[in-house]
Amino acid sequence: MKLATLKNGTREGRLVVVSRDLRRAVSAETVVATMRQAIDDWVAVEADLRRLSEQLNAGSAPATFTFDPTQAMAPLPRSHQFVDASAFLNHGDIMVQAYKLDIKTEPGVCILVPRPGDDFRGPSHDYEFPTEADQCDFEGEFAVITDDIPMGATPQQALSRVRLVALLDDISMRAHLFKEIGLGFGLMRAKPATVFAPVAVTPDELGEAWKDGRIHLDLHVSRNGEWFGHPNGREMNFGFGELLSYMAYNRRLGAGLVLGSGTVSNKAYREVGSACLAERRAVETIDNGEATTPFMRYGERLRFEAKDAQGQSVFGAIDFKFVLSRREA
Amino acid sequence: MKLATLKNGTREGRLVVVSRDLRRAVSAETVVATMRQAIDDWVAVEADLRRLSEQLNAGSAPATFTFDPTQAMAPLPRSHQFVDASAFLNHGDIMVQAYKLDIKTEPGVCILVPRPGDDFRGPSHDYEFPTEADQCDFEGEFAVITDDIPMGATPQQALSRVRLVALLDDISMRAHLFKEIGLGFGLMRAKPATVFAPVAVTPDELGEAWKDGRIHLDLHVSRNGEWFGHPNGREMNFGFGELLSYMAYNRRLGAGLVLGSGTVSNKAYREVGSACLAERRAVETIDNGEATTPFMRYGERLRFEAKDAQGQSVFGAIDFKFVLSRREA
Repeated sequence: MKLATLKNGTREGRLVVVSRDLRRAVSAETVVATMRQAIDDWVAVEADLRRLSEQLNAGSAPATFTFDPTQAMAPLPRSHQFVDASAFLNHGDIMVQAYKLDIKTEPGVCILVPRPGDDFRGPSHDYEFPTEADQCDFEGEFAVITDDIPMGATPQQALSRVRLVALLDDISMRAHLFKEIGLGFGLMRAKPATVFAPVAVTPDELGEAWKDGRIHLDLHVSRNGEWFGHPNGREMNFGFGELLSYMAYNRRLGAGLVLGSGTVSNKAYREVGSACLAERRAVETIDNGEATTPFMRYGERLRFEAKDAQGQSVFGAIDFKFVLSRREA
Repeated sequence: MKLATLKNGTREGRLVVVSRDLRRAVSAETVVATMRQAIDDWVAVEADLRRLSEQLNAGSAPATFTFDPTQAMAPLPRSHQFVDASAFLNHGDIMVQAYKLDIKTEPGVCILVPRPGDDFRGPSHDYEFPTEADQCDFEGEFAVITDDIPMGATPQQALSRVRLVALLDDISMRAHLFKEIGLGFGLMRAKPATVFAPVAVTPDELGEAWKDGRIHLDLHVSRNGEWFGHPNGREMNFGFGELLSYMAYNRRLGAGLVLGSGTVSNKAYREVGSACLAERRAVETIDNGEATTPFMRYGERLRFEAKDAQGQSVFGAIDFKFVLSRREA
């Protein structure tokens, strides 16, 4: 089942079921009005949503319409808990090698970064930021959206509460990053609003590509229409189940939790490229002593997409451009 | 105006208006059903809520009932952005002096810790945690709840969007804290669910005690019925307006943002005591070379309350006990 949220002037938008080929959609309002309500009440609404999805894919649903991803908000427009992992250790290894970083790690413990969930962006919205001096970067990531997870849940129990899988671009302002890591209390200016692909899908939609709590898909990244990388999610060093269980050690996790994988990164990075500028710049630094790929400039475009074994886009594409923010206040 | 959320079996509870003396309440349902809806649509609902509040305080509201704080959830049961500051530098100074800490700071920049907002606790709920070895502590704090704040807002603009003031206990597991600060990406196991006093109030309710974006009230903390401290919020080194403006540098802040002050701490700590164990233990370490006040044990109780110039409890009291968590999964 594939779900999206369309703009309707409200904060939570309106939920629609999207066809497997992303061409058609049908309102979910006969079942539930918003993704927030759906994820808050998943067990009660799932069967009816799936029935609607089956009708849509069979061509028998009434009142379908063309799915326009430019009208999409983030699938879940707001979350009460957004955590971003850094679960591809290959990425960290490259960064440490390039910059001789002294990043402390604890064996078996994944970096998990609590983040605001109040301003998730849809896939096509111009992205404003105040100055190019902030060194604007991106990170292509897979993510899961969960139901309630009780305190003390095992990895397997936590994994069974994953309701949806999503694709996101974790915008990162590198000029602030190492300073904020040095302060040690979390990231603020280094990590502004996050951008989501239009469609979130139930794990079964991924077939064999959903395995061991990992998403075994290539994440295709392009910058201004040019290939940038297509690393695969299978090399995640910690599965989503393990990460969720770690988080649930002494807390209950509430429905609608969004957990990102961290920038997708592969050992064969020289063949498959990277999903963020920082990693490519680190490779350039290792090879040539300096980074030559520039950070993002106003007017530049990014695109992120993952396709299944049949070449079908799974989540739809993130495709947007950066613009100078105007003072709104 | 004083507002609270009562349990009704739903995730968001039901909104009630509470009388100034915290004795009576009236359902807000004729205006708006939940605090989430109220804060999402504040400008539209505020006048009608205030009218209800005036009727209640004048004794002319229909269908009032006794306000029972043990039936309260957190005033806003979930938030899409919870950030906890550490805006009383006196607290940090004591910690650094006691433990010779090497905490990096940037002049003029306040520590701001992004936190999950999915499990805010009401004032009377037993608080479960898995082991006393985690060194359970508390932090008495004031907090603000805001409306939308645009990117680039000035401190004054941001302050004008503060809709409510609240009181919270930021539960802290000290065995995890310095390790997680050392990792540098934010706090996870060190900071489980946060507990709120039953009532949130509009800033005007504080009168002269709301000044310079600070809450000029003593925060009374007791442990098992014994005085622990009553530091005053006026010594905050960064006002809430400055903190919000810092956060809004390159992001929009969404309605319902909860920003905590950090543990309230005063220069005269030898007279007024502290609002957390860590600070008292640090003072003991400075004075005697070792800390003797123990961390929280199962069965122990905490109480937090702030009173106005007339001795009236402003937010009602946080009053709960700690219990061993049972594996729910």
